[in-house]
Amino acid sequence: MSTTPISNDEIFQEHRGGKLRIESKLPLTSKRDLSIAYTPGVAQVSRAIAAEPELAKEYTWAQRLVVVVSDGTAVLGLGDIGASASLPVMEGKAALFREFGGLDSIPLVLNTTNVDEIIETLIRLRPSFGAVNLEDISAPRCFELEQRLIEALDCPVMHDDQHGTAVVVLAALINALRVTDRAIGDTRVVVSGAGAAGIAVTEILLAVGVADVILVDSRGTIHRDRTDLTPTKAHYAAVTNSETVVGDVVDALEGADVFVGVSSAKLPDGALERMNPNAIVFALSNPDPEVMPEVAAEHAAVVATGRSDYPNQINNVLAFPGIFRGALDSGARRITQDMKLAAAHAIADLVGDDLAADYVVPSPLDPRVAEAVAAAVGEAAKAPTA
Amino acid sequence: MSTTPISNDEIFQEHRGGKLRIESKLPLTSKRDLSIAYTPGVAQVSRAIAAEPELAKEYTWAQRLVVVVSDGTAVLGLGDIGASASLPVMEGKAALFREFGGLDSIPLVLNTTNVDEIIETLIRLRPSFGAVNLEDISAPRCFELEQRLIEALDCPVMHDDQHGTAVVVLAALINALRVTDRAIGDTRVVVSGAGAAGIAVTEILLAVGVADVILVDSRGTIHRDRTDLTPTKAHYAAVTNSETVVGDVVDALEGADVFVGVSSAKLPDGALERMNPNAIVFALSNPDPEVMPEVAAEHAAVVATGRSDYPNQINNVLAFPGIFRGALDSGARRITQDMKLAAAHAIADLVGDDLAADYVVPSPLDPRVAEAVAAAVGEAAKAPTA
Repeated sequence: MSTTPISNDEIFQEHRGGKLRIESKLPLTSKRDLSIAYTPGVAQVSRAIAAEPELAKEYTWAQRLVVVVSDGTAVLGLGDIGASASLPVMEGKAALFREFGGLDSIPLVLNTTNVDEIIETLIRLRPSFGAVNLEDISAPRCFELEQRLIEALDCPVMHDDQHGTAVVVLAALINALRVTDRAIGDTRVVVSGAGAAGIAVTEILLAVGVADVILVDSRGTIHRDRTDLTPTKAHYAAVTNSETVVGDVVDALEGADVFVGVSSAKLPDGALERMNPNAIVFALSNPDPEVMPEVAAEHAAVVATGRSDYPNQINNVLAFPGIFRGALDSGARRITQDMKLAAAHAIADLVGDDLAADYVVPSPLDPRVAEAVAAAVGEAAKAPTA
Repeated sequence: MSTTPISNDEIFQEHRGGKLRIESKLPLTSKRDLSIAYTPGVAQVSRAIAAEPELAKEYTWAQRLVVVVSDGTAVLGLGDIGASASLPVMEGKAALFREFGGLDSIPLVLNTTNVDEIIETLIRLRPSFGAVNLEDISAPRCFELEQRLIEALDCPVMHDDQHGTAVVVLAALINALRVTDRAIGDTRVVVSGAGAAGIAVTEILLAVGVADVILVDSRGTIHRDRTDLTPTKAHYAAVTNSETVVGDVVDALEGADVFVGVSSAKLPDGALERMNPNAIVFALSNPDPEVMPEVAAEHAAVVATGRSDYPNQINNVLAFPGIFRGALDSGARRITQDMKLAAAHAIADLVGDDLAADYVVPSPLDPRVAEAVAAAVGEAAKAPTA
């Protein structure tokens, strides 16, 4: 693969003036055009919506508009850099919604980190959009924020750092288990990192019936006897780590089948040797994986990272465009767990007969993905249990 | 002029799915594209902005993004129809910003009409945009809202129903005075309607030195002895109607040179006969003018309306795209009165040697307008008095 290195100059040049552009879908070059798109014609449409509010879904862009909302508290690996500095990331996300999901999307970055204020702001703006993609919001605030927003808004809301990641991890895991001939009910998983992604990955793995998960945070394994846990971590302490393994990530890996790294914590040398044979290693910290793929490959049968320059790239773009597209197409009010599971299976299934240790997820650029995910999510939204 | 009537079917068909579309300015079809526009490349840009916040102006879309903000309380002639029903109008406005001003613009419609809450919401969203166009917000709330927002935000804020209208009325008046050979200091003006537009028109006319203005609201002329006035109207009662004319609009027109109608109140038959010879009549209520141009022409030397099917269309699109473009291009923090006056003169000047009774303002579709207005506004922004 021939690749010219990307220079900082090129990156900044491409970002000049931002990455998004608003276009008018209608021509505005004649008096007639103006009379249709603006006054007096538009008054007919406004009057119709005033009389029948549901018509807003048909005659405005709001119904298919995803707002990408961040307070800039947990941006990429950069941490709490603030709303304004987070905007380039949110613009990129909005651009991905357009390119992969065929959806309109705008970034809304907030210079408040107060959960009540963020919720209040989005409630006030509710008529302006059709769905909320929360992005790069720090844990544990992100859990409360997402949960309360789901209750407060009658539209799809998803914190992508949690559930987008969890869906793609599950998709990759489904296929990695096939490659290594494991049953999910016999599989023990170590999740390193108990932030937004780690918690959501744990949640989805428990939902699909893995044998056990051990969550590890910066202080070691999360277990029932820890007294320093946030409410969210305490909740998961009660339903994970069934053998109450106390110690660090190396202790946790003893006899584990799967390692999922979603923190920036490097794995100590030799840590993977504690795992069961034919181990599965997802080292997702980006750009510096918890363990480099070449090293992981010495002990693991399947290795995935978040990087585009290695096989098996676990990238949220496989999930979020299709999830939101499917939710909006089906008129779903919420993104349910069934819809997330459907998305994971749809991603996994696209690999098909090409399944191999170095191909457990499709490429993020595979144009089939968003469409397949949207269709599966839409079906799940319509199912009676949804 | 051959014109096929516009059917309701056509209007609704054209509005299906809304009128705006988000595009990515960068391609997103290769791994390299993703690495520049999204991770890992975007992290360089976010890191740079975190270190030097001013760089957000250069490397995000926010600096040139106008948010069109409404609470749906005074939408066109439809009144308080609510945020959602106002959205088609705001989408149209955003489309006009793109087409005429070359600016990105998004509608934000709020389901609160509380001035404090609207201000608070925009303060929280401040890092997301570069300027605020308030739209279709009812008087007298709009006066307080605009004034307080100007204080609260370090970016251009303008209520277009006020100042966009005032600027175009002034432009048309400058030329109508030339046509009728009047000096502005000798000119008496009656403004029918003391809402957002009427107040702002009065303000700008006083600023350029008209001899007198009589404002008329639904209860008659506004004068010093009225005890039923809002604070804003009371302020103008003190500086207008120098002869304390008491009565209705017909009484006000006695000896007046100019009629500006910005209410839906029809003029009684014969009212214009009270005016001075060679009168100027701007009957701007839309789609039904206060007096039909054919009738007005019996008494007036210059007649203008808000309609596209008569000469002299007084349309805000002549002003707002260029005003915001000029303000943003020049990095102005506020839209000053000097900038508004410069805009009015730029619009008036474009008529040039073609000046005639039926051509006192350029066509709203004249592509020279926004550019000329932006240049004049930018110059005024840089002037020492700005």
